[in-house]
Amino acid sequence: MYDLIIIGGGPAGLTAAVYARRAGLSTLILEITVCGGQIINSQSVENFPAIPQIEGWRLADTWQKQAQALGAQVMTAAVTGIELEGERKLVHTAKGDFEALAVIVATGAGHRKLDCPGGAELSGRGVSTCASCDGAFFRGRKVAVVGGGNTAFEDALYLSSLCETVYIVHRRREFRAERQLVDAVKGKANVEFLTPCVPVEVLADEKRRVAALRVRNVETGEETTLDTPGVFTAIGMIPHNEAFANVLRLDEAGYAIAGEDCESGTPGVWVAGDGRQKALRQLITAAADGAVAATAAAKYINSLK
Amino acid sequence: MYDLIIIGGGPAGLTAAVYARRAGLSTLILEITVCGGQIINSQSVENFPAIPQIEGWRLADTWQKQAQALGAQVMTAAVTGIELEGERKLVHTAKGDFEALAVIVATGAGHRKLDCPGGAELSGRGVSTCASCDGAFFRGRKVAVVGGGNTAFEDALYLSSLCETVYIVHRRREFRAERQLVDAVKGKANVEFLTPCVPVEVLADEKRRVAALRVRNVETGEETTLDTPGVFTAIGMIPHNEAFANVLRLDEAGYAIAGEDCESGTPGVWVAGDGRQKALRQLITAAADGAVAATAAAKYINSLK
Repeated sequence: MYDLIIIGGGPAGLTAAVYARRAGLSTLILEITVCGGQIINSQSVENFPAIPQIEGWRLADTWQKQAQALGAQVMTAAVTGIELEGERKLVHTAKGDFEALAVIVATGAGHRKLDCPGGAELSGRGVSTCASCDGAFFRGRKVAVVGGGNTAFEDALYLSSLCETVYIVHRRREFRAERQLVDAVKGKANVEFLTPCVPVEVLADEKRRVAALRVRNVETGEETTLDTPGVFTAIGMIPHNEAFANVLRLDEAGYAIAGEDCESGTPGVWVAGDGRQKALRQLITAAADGAVAATAAAKYINSLK
Repeated sequence: MYDLIIIGGGPAGLTAAVYARRAGLSTLILEITVCGGQIINSQSVENFPAIPQIEGWRLADTWQKQAQALGAQVMTAAVTGIELEGERKLVHTAKGDFEALAVIVATGAGHRKLDCPGGAELSGRGVSTCASCDGAFFRGRKVAVVGGGNTAFEDALYLSSLCETVYIVHRRREFRAERQLVDAVKGKANVEFLTPCVPVEVLADEKRRVAALRVRNVETGEETTLDTPGVFTAIGMIPHNEAFANVLRLDEAGYAIAGEDCESGTPGVWVAGDGRQKALRQLITAAADGAVAATAAAKYINSLK
């Protein structure tokens, strides 16, 4: 029986473990693959406070070692669900069941991937899902943004102030983004719209980095090749909460309905990181959630003991 | 005219500057003393994600250099207020006025002073809010720490290695501090607990320096005089928002009423860090606020231009 089980070893889960161990809780992290979350795919992280530049895998490694040095256990296991037995929480995994007094769900969310040749292969090599993380790498150059929602237009607006040209590629003529955002982007002289167009292929150069994006107009069939080293995809996120619908309240998109206190609505269960409804999904905001959730869990457990 | 002025160069302000510069905003930080906020008084920071251990001043220095390397300007100036002129914000300082389209108030919070005779008068004359700054003055002597939270226990732990005896004076029998910290302090043979006790008076010697602390047990009414030249207070914080009451909504304690979106209620003005209402005031939650506020400010400014 652990005091705390943390499901997911990304920035939220690892920070939760650091805070939980400092609060004296016996702590187990259950991670499905390797710790670090989305940062393990990032060649260079340059927006982490007080760390000007670091490779994603190295940041993840340092962070995990910090948690383990403080005494957190890390196990690789796929969690299939949580069962409540009064104050005890039974966490089911492919490797068996684990018990705890408190659980933090920190499974995060994944970006929907480009469904065309090169889309997955060149991820992290010019194909990015985070304009504010990677935009600065393309300062003064041409970039493409794929998508038509708020995130795509926020990305386009952000990139338009950095890049020579921003191509917006969207499969429909209409956009789901808020009108104000769309108007703001349309007011930018360096933004070009390619609609209704879908990505056909992401092309690489000899260094296996993005060189161009080929798109096809779905009405005329005409194909266009955009010479660009950067392809930003904003075609939606998928929160990894589906196994926890019995302990979380989920919105239509699958995000957990929880405020900055990370309270799930189920006593003894918190939700931290990208899987929670929030304004900004970043390393640092996920980490903050982890600290908040673990501190609340420590208070909860101390009140039980 | 700047895109963004950030008032306060602590963890929230520095993170805001990193995000703002990466978004291409011209950015000025106005800091009243030196950047870093409360961490500059911390001998060792051990709960920062992915940085297992670092001296406070070094963390502050690295962080400030990160912001400056990205192009943020830092100026030492006391801000006296903000004036709204349509979309322009005029920031008044002792060194003159500065203009911006957006402002982030990240002035944080400061230490509450002892509310008993002698408490304010003897501040800096034996009454201190910074164990790591002033502890060495009391090497081999007896000191008192007033408070029951993490700061009080961190101070007590630090002082126990320098001083003959450390008295912890706290108005309750229970402590808010993390269990690990409480256990560590209880393991020190030279720490004595006086609970539930409140300070009644700080007594001075003929040189107008602290000579003793008189405390009263709130249950029994019994008074005790502790002969000590050093009184360290760790009894809470006061937000530094008083100059910004015209652009922030303040609660009774002076904290800005704002959610995790950091929106102040005044268009173009955000509030980030310890000065905002929140569950947990930590380096990491302040930093998260900075990222959120700067990202929102970038969106706001891009929609104006």
